[in-house]
Amino acid sequence: MRILTGITPSGTLHIGNYFGAMRPAIELQDRGEAFYFIADYHSMTALTDPVRRRQFTLEIALDWLACGLDPQKAVFWKQSDLPEVCELTWLIGSLTPMGLLERAHSYKDKTAKGISPNFGLFAYPVLMAADILLYDTNLVPVGKDQKQHVEMTRDIAIKFNQTYGETFVVPEEEIRGEVAVVPGLDGQKMSKSYGNTVEIFGDEKALRKKIMGIVMDSRTPAEPKPDAEKNLAIQLLKLVAPADAAADFENRLRAGGLGYGDLKKALFEHYWNYFAPYRVKRAELAANLDYVESVLRDGAQRARATASGVLQRARKACGIE
Amino acid sequence: MRILTGITPSGTLHIGNYFGAMRPAIELQDRGEAFYFIADYHSMTALTDPVRRRQFTLEIALDWLACGLDPQKAVFWKQSDLPEVCELTWLIGSLTPMGLLERAHSYKDKTAKGISPNFGLFAYPVLMAADILLYDTNLVPVGKDQKQHVEMTRDIAIKFNQTYGETFVVPEEEIRGEVAVVPGLDGQKMSKSYGNTVEIFGDEKALRKKIMGIVMDSRTPAEPKPDAEKNLAIQLLKLVAPADAAADFENRLRAGGLGYGDLKKALFEHYWNYFAPYRVKRAELAANLDYVESVLRDGAQRARATASGVLQRARKACGIE
Repeated sequence: MRILTGITPSGTLHIGNYFGAMRPAIELQDRGEAFYFIADYHSMTALTDPVRRRQFTLEIALDWLACGLDPQKAVFWKQSDLPEVCELTWLIGSLTPMGLLERAHSYKDKTAKGISPNFGLFAYPVLMAADILLYDTNLVPVGKDQKQHVEMTRDIAIKFNQTYGETFVVPEEEIRGEVAVVPGLDGQKMSKSYGNTVEIFGDEKALRKKIMGIVMDSRTPAEPKPDAEKNLAIQLLKLVAPADAAADFENRLRAGGLGYGDLKKALFEHYWNYFAPYRVKRAELAANLDYVESVLRDGAQRARATASGVLQRARKACGIE
Repeated sequence: MRILTGITPSGTLHIGNYFGAMRPAIELQDRGEAFYFIADYHSMTALTDPVRRRQFTLEIALDWLACGLDPQKAVFWKQSDLPEVCELTWLIGSLTPMGLLERAHSYKDKTAKGISPNFGLFAYPVLMAADILLYDTNLVPVGKDQKQHVEMTRDIAIKFNQTYGETFVVPEEEIRGEVAVVPGLDGQKMSKSYGNTVEIFGDEKALRKKIMGIVMDSRTPAEPKPDAEKNLAIQLLKLVAPADAAADFENRLRAGGLGYGDLKKALFEHYWNYFAPYRVKRAELAANLDYVESVLRDGAQRARATASGVLQRARKACGIE
């Protein structure tokens, strides 16, 4: 079973990204033949700075390899190393009804937010369909917000198969179950656009300051806190500390006698330790970019081994060779 | 100066195509570095029969080579032999405003005619812009109906250059002057959709029958015809006969004494003779398809020599390599 995951190179990752999407995605490499690509073509619809695109692409590769993506198990490549996906976009796009794309939530939402609509934003689901179909993907695990795009891919694949004969594997979507919704430092959902993030990787001093700066209420340390499970630091602690340690802190907070400062200190230590092995690995990788590039190059070759066959099938089916 | 012409493989050509578009296009090979491509990717928006696409693509190659396209002078290739154009479509499309495409006449006209709109039809001008920009084209000679598409290409090129730095040559359009509007056998403009065509190549007997079947008025041969210049056979004769011969027939028709049957016989003979050398050439080519394929293969190589440099420039500019 081939499982595909696309990764948008959109900048520094935070622990909300890690627990919400990255960790579950990396776990897929043990479930089947996992394909991961860095979606630099997709990033063009939102980002027009070439320097940042290059930097984000490299950083996302470092981040994922550091956090456990294993290139021995999985195939990991940069989307634009296989421009074949753009040709497939045209082949399937020529059959895609406009109505299908006009109903896409992602397009409607973004234009509703006042983002000036460009063709790339509108065409995004066709490129995504090509991403999926080019690799004979069986399964696409997605968040709820991406469900519609996989359904569109199915529609497009079925229409192509009906028009030109059996060509594409029709993929199934798998909606990620209740993943951890990670609260940010202000209690809202952690999100770069709210400026409430804790990065996975970064400067120790600055990160400690961020965590120590979490604003809490004015109850004294001695006061019992019957709502301890709602405390932000406790919630974050449950993600990064062993279960018994987190439970212990929660109980102490509930009973009274644990100061917020001590709690935040503990949170920082557990957070810092949790990511310590990844931090070491990332530093190693950053000191050996040739290796990182060779991983992506090798991944592109392995991806191409599948892609070229699928593309030949599609070209032949529609009579362009 | 590089001059680009795209040729849609849409089936058997008629003399309206020849005098209206093909002959002026072929004459371009003496004006500059002429690039011609068979637009099989474009054909996908209208034609979903792979067998006919292959056949039309081959026939259009035979037709143009038979009618004088000289692969020693010009570069002649099949669009889909350079899938690079699809990648460039994505790169420039990600910057193309939706509003620009929504204003395209070609899309509005076709959907107004009840053609069920697909994404390919909508995206057509972006692929056309990529066709033009991929080859550092200086000049695009077009009919009035295509003027807007070249203007859109200019807009897209300028926007890309402003966003990512100087990358593309901004092309100029050249509107074809008053080309011959060739009347069909029923007096309307010659067009496949009116079923009033005379093919460039075809079976002698059937074509003779078509021309002898032109319906004229009921005036007797002896009657003078002061409106001789409006006679359909005279109009067609002016295209295929030497000027003095055509004038002679026109004068005889005007004076009275020339029967319509004799006039149509003369029209057929001149038409048949006009295309005789092309017919011979086409038969030679059809008997030597390896040569035709080698012409297209060689053309693709020569086109790629330009395209790969332009594409590298564009990829680098937007930071995807």
